Amino acid sequence: MNNFSFHNPTEIIFGRDSVKKLGEKTRQIGERALLVTGGGSVKKIGLYDKVVDSLVEAGVEVFEISGVKPNPRISLVREGVKLCREKEIDIVLGVGGGSTVDTAKTIATGVLFDGDPWELFTMEGEPDKAIPVGVVLTLAATGSEMNGNAVISNLETEEKLAIHNPASYPSFSILDPVNTFSVPKKHTVYGIVDIAAHIFEQYFSHTPATPIQDRWAESLLKTLIEEGDRVLADPEDYDARASIMLTGTMALSGLLAMGKVEDWASHDIEHELSAIYDIPHGGGLAILFPNWMNYVLTEGTEKFAQYAVRVFGVDPEGKTEKELALEGIKKTREWFNSLGAPSRLSDYDIGEENLEIMAEKATSRGALGGYKKLYKEDVLKIYRMSL
Amino acid sequence: MNNFSFHNPTEIIFGRDSVKKLGEKTRQIGERALLVTGGGSVKKIGLYDKVVDSLVEAGVEVFEISGVKPNPRISLVREGVKLCREKEIDIVLGVGGGSTVDTAKTIATGVLFDGDPWELFTMEGEPDKAIPVGVVLTLAATGSEMNGNAVISNLETEEKLAIHNPASYPSFSILDPVNTFSVPKKHTVYGIVDIAAHIFEQYFSHTPATPIQDRWAESLLKTLIEEGDRVLADPEDYDARASIMLTGTMALSGLLAMGKVEDWASHDIEHELSAIYDIPHGGGLAILFPNWMNYVLTEGTEKFAQYAVRVFGVDPEGKTEKELALEGIKKTREWFNSLGAPSRLSDYDIGEENLEIMAEKATSRGALGGYKKLYKEDVLKIYRMSL
Repeated sequence: MNNFSFHNPTEIIFGRDSVKKLGEKTRQIGERALLVTGGGSVKKIGLYDKVVDSLVEAGVEVFEISGVKPNPRISLVREGVKLCREKEIDIVLGVGGGSTVDTAKTIATGVLFDGDPWELFTMEGEPDKAIPVGVVLTLAATGSEMNGNAVISNLETEEKLAIHNPASYPSFSILDPVNTFSVPKKHTVYGIVDIAAHIFEQYFSHTPATPIQDRWAESLLKTLIEEGDRVLADPEDYDARASIMLTGTMALSGLLAMGKVEDWASHDIEHELSAIYDIPHGGGLAILFPNWMNYVLTEGTEKFAQYAVRVFGVDPEGKTEKELALEGIKKTREWFNSLGAPSRLSDYDIGEENLEIMAEKATSRGALGGYKKLYKEDVLKIYRMSL
Repeated sequence: MNNFSFHNPTEIIFGRDSVKKLGEKTRQIGERALLVTGGGSVKKIGLYDKVVDSLVEAGVEVFEISGVKPNPRISLVREGVKLCREKEIDIVLGVGGGSTVDTAKTIATGVLFDGDPWELFTMEGEPDKAIPVGVVLTLAATGSEMNGNAVISNLETEEKLAIHNPASYPSFSILDPVNTFSVPKKHTVYGIVDIAAHIFEQYFSHTPATPIQDRWAESLLKTLIEEGDRVLADPEDYDARASIMLTGTMALSGLLAMGKVEDWASHDIEHELSAIYDIPHGGGLAILFPNWMNYVLTEGTEKFAQYAVRVFGVDPEGKTEKELALEGIKKTREWFNSLGAPSRLSDYDIGEENLEIMAEKATSRGALGGYKKLYKEDVLKIYRMSL
């Protein structure tokens, strides 16, 4: 285990009707809140009214910006920052899925940043100031509700980039599994794949002697596999929705990465796809990740063999480490397929045309990954394996 | 899973030489620190000098109180509170094991409490104010370094009681496994038993649908079993010491209890033993816990069967749930025995003499436990099973 520091100050408020605590929690921080939403679904499920009621009842003055889309845009962040400054906002509330939370966090960071918000993503170093953020989550996927990360797209430059700001951890995140009941099957699946991918990025590592972090990652994956089946069978299964929601939050809370070198190459490789083709992040990850696994196997099979045995219950009897590793990867693809996730770029009508450019852009800030360093040629090969 | 809120703002600074960050971290909070130590061992291992050097170098003015003992005393807390007020202390630093940390936290709470500190333990409700606390940990056991709990003994009243104060979570805890290298075998074992007991108190619960919390608890127990053997074979095995230290911290960080009804009867039953006989907490728990397990089996065997299979790898083939449960309990006793922990009250020369009084006192604030409600007669039976 490497030296590390872990600090996650977000308060999780979890369970049925937890949105009722929103007003009180917000009012403890300030009087003027900017509400950030996608628009449609939070109104359709009746959450929007509950949010506003709770805030108004607690004496919070509510301002609003809506229209967050998947692969959220820097243009909306700019609007939000402007509004926060004009209205002297005390706290930014993201009510929605990961895109909404990331938009809220980036607005909160941008308010205290002296420059255009996109510079936050392209500058050297990372920001360390933000006004407070609160979250009401409606989708189990990105884990953004309990960390300092945000991913934003710039349509003009066709870039999708991530920032980390230790000051942008939400002060509180309200997680009611009922708010995920109406998430369509497709997006539920993308969420599950995204959560699995976050776990993989931290699990597959050469850092030795991390038994807790490894077992906790395996625990989350096993839970995701079991509860994923249950939630697809019954989208209103509270327990299954609750376990998936908590898995998503814990997966990127920093716990799995304690003292480990992480990877994140697959995310960088996927971001290029979403930036150009605007495909769902979870869909892109489902296509790419098993291919990444096969590609990096040259760097060691031990962790992949452990994964096969512990997560999928593969019987190790009479098998080499390599055989176990390959079986684990095969089972990963089968699992994603069983969920109905896409498995090839052609599922999104993506062909050879931009692979070279994407590989170039993905590695323009240097080689990717921790398990195996990936250069432009490596990334191109992984894209080609995914056609 | 029940509704819950989770909030753990402690920053963990983990690894070799992490004490070098103490001065800087302390100075971010204040200029005047009260150092709380046991006295002997922190000087012997050279940690004391490193602590003072780091603080002085960062410009922190250091005041001091030492002499914390296992089963730490309210009398020392009173002295600490007095000193904090006189010297206008900004932060209380506990440098040592759980007893020292609990003393530091109770002092920090007592400073802002209008009354004798022992009233904190006997009053209705819980305190919610404290001056900041920092920790440099030297023993993997109580988990106090990442929560708001403290356990203090009052020798006059022969009571050992616990408080929770959400404001007393340490601002930071510095965890260097090297500082546990010189912990004698006996205390290493007590620490391992204490950590296991904390996990049990949260694991054995009737709350349904908590797959993550259960698997994370099982993960910690498996790690403890494996790494415990390694650390007894080589007390300077960094990786094993590191995994045990992190297990201890995570075990009581609140993660395992998310959305679950907890138990804690065994701790209450043990506290009476320590209060009267001043025996080591871990020793008392090793004696009592397997007997508690056998006693509460009437309330359900399912979780105990799962424990046997998942933690000890018991083969479930052809066995009833009850048989599996009993095998898991037997394996718990065998594990504690293999570590060299005591297994009977007679190991501490404790006989029938005070059992009745202890059972009376243990239940004087009401029935104990969550898995099975324990009244005076139940507690007495568990003491008798332990003779």
